[in-house]
Amino acid sequence: MTIVLYELVGADEKRPFSPHVWKTVMSLAHKGLPWRSAPTRFIEVPQIEGGVSKTIPVIRDGDKIVADSFAIALYLEETYPDRPSLFRGKGGEAMARFIERWSQTQLHPFLGSAALMDIYEMQDGANKPYFRESREKRYGKSLEAVSADRDAHLDAFRKRLEPLRDMLNYQPFIGGQTPFYPDYIVFSAFQWVRVSSPYAFLADNDPLWDWVNRCLDLHEGVARKTPTAA
Amino acid sequence: MTIVLYELVGADEKRPFSPHVWKTVMSLAHKGLPWRSAPTRFIEVPQIEGGVSKTIPVIRDGDKIVADSFAIALYLEETYPDRPSLFRGKGGEAMARFIERWSQTQLHPFLGSAALMDIYEMQDGANKPYFRESREKRYGKSLEAVSADRDAHLDAFRKRLEPLRDMLNYQPFIGGQTPFYPDYIVFSAFQWVRVSSPYAFLADNDPLWDWVNRCLDLHEGVARKTPTAA
Repeated sequence: MTIVLYELVGADEKRPFSPHVWKTVMSLAHKGLPWRSAPTRFIEVPQIEGGVSKTIPVIRDGDKIVADSFAIALYLEETYPDRPSLFRGKGGEAMARFIERWSQTQLHPFLGSAALMDIYEMQDGANKPYFRESREKRYGKSLEAVSADRDAHLDAFRKRLEPLRDMLNYQPFIGGQTPFYPDYIVFSAFQWVRVSSPYAFLADNDPLWDWVNRCLDLHEGVARKTPTAA
Repeated sequence: MTIVLYELVGADEKRPFSPHVWKTVMSLAHKGLPWRSAPTRFIEVPQIEGGVSKTIPVIRDGDKIVADSFAIALYLEETYPDRPSLFRGKGGEAMARFIERWSQTQLHPFLGSAALMDIYEMQDGANKPYFRESREKRYGKSLEAVSADRDAHLDAFRKRLEPLRDMLNYQPFIGGQTPFYPDYIVFSAFQWVRVSSPYAFLADNDPLWDWVNRCLDLHEGVARKTPTAA
């Protein structure tokens, strides 16, 4: 049965931008499971499937509804054990949580701030006021002021990527010779900005591009096919 | 057969301080393998087992000699598969390399600088000149100048620990409910400074102490038994 994936979109349904949803897109593609998109805008999220979650992604797989990207990955791994593994054992499953928290605490704050105005501009008329109000409350300043600050933090952000860059001296993916869920966790943070903003968060000569491009090529180029910001 | 572990020591053989050796001590204890220490000082390292390695740890297990903490962990996992696992599957093995590079790039530079003068003071008369000369060449300044700088970088270091701190909201170890090699990778960086320096690299109220104390309690308190710096 085709899995339904509630994806976060703005005015353009062809440009899903949520990093957490991208983790699930890559997980579904990795497992080779058929799925269809249910495009969802910010203010529609609380209504998904009768209000099961305040956040996205949410999937419906037959009668089963699962929210939260990490919980979805665990669900897919348990439910489809004969498909390619997302974790390759209990050790991978446990350690993936560390990678998730690394990505969330070291990469997301900068990337989310850097793309903030561009994500705002992607929203339709009904969602723009919601986005501005909720984010300005969270940051304690205007969207414009948050994004204006990004250049000042760019060097520190690029330095925080050093563990990933250094790992590539040993192996082509976090998963070793082939990718798995932790690669998707980190790649999805980059894909978030690729889709929503033209901001050059990586230098053109950053060796990380090799890994980003390998991720973009995966699964028939599912991530590369989505139009990026101009 | 008892495994021989070449450990790095200073004047006092009872205080092995190398973080990389601590990874191996914890790995051997995790596997429950009998081993004995071969205390080694910096200038003796190139002579170990006929000069197999420029760095420590090195182990001898019967006829087999293995150098490098990560290679040793892989060797122990492969050679003693019936003992408790250090990686719990291929996923854990692959991802451990990312954790190693995180620890090496995000934790070691600060911790090594912060403890530098104290590590110097631990060396015996023959090793002090070697240590001073090689480290001053590496840093491009005096040992005293490197250590004097530590307070200025302390806050940034503590912030870089956020992924680990945040992970503890989900699980007690990087390995999930129980520890494994990646826990030892990170813990050993802390143990390095505990043994060599009185410097308070963690605030007294840092929630990470819960995890550090859990690690110190492991395997009959093998890490806690080593005398710390005054």
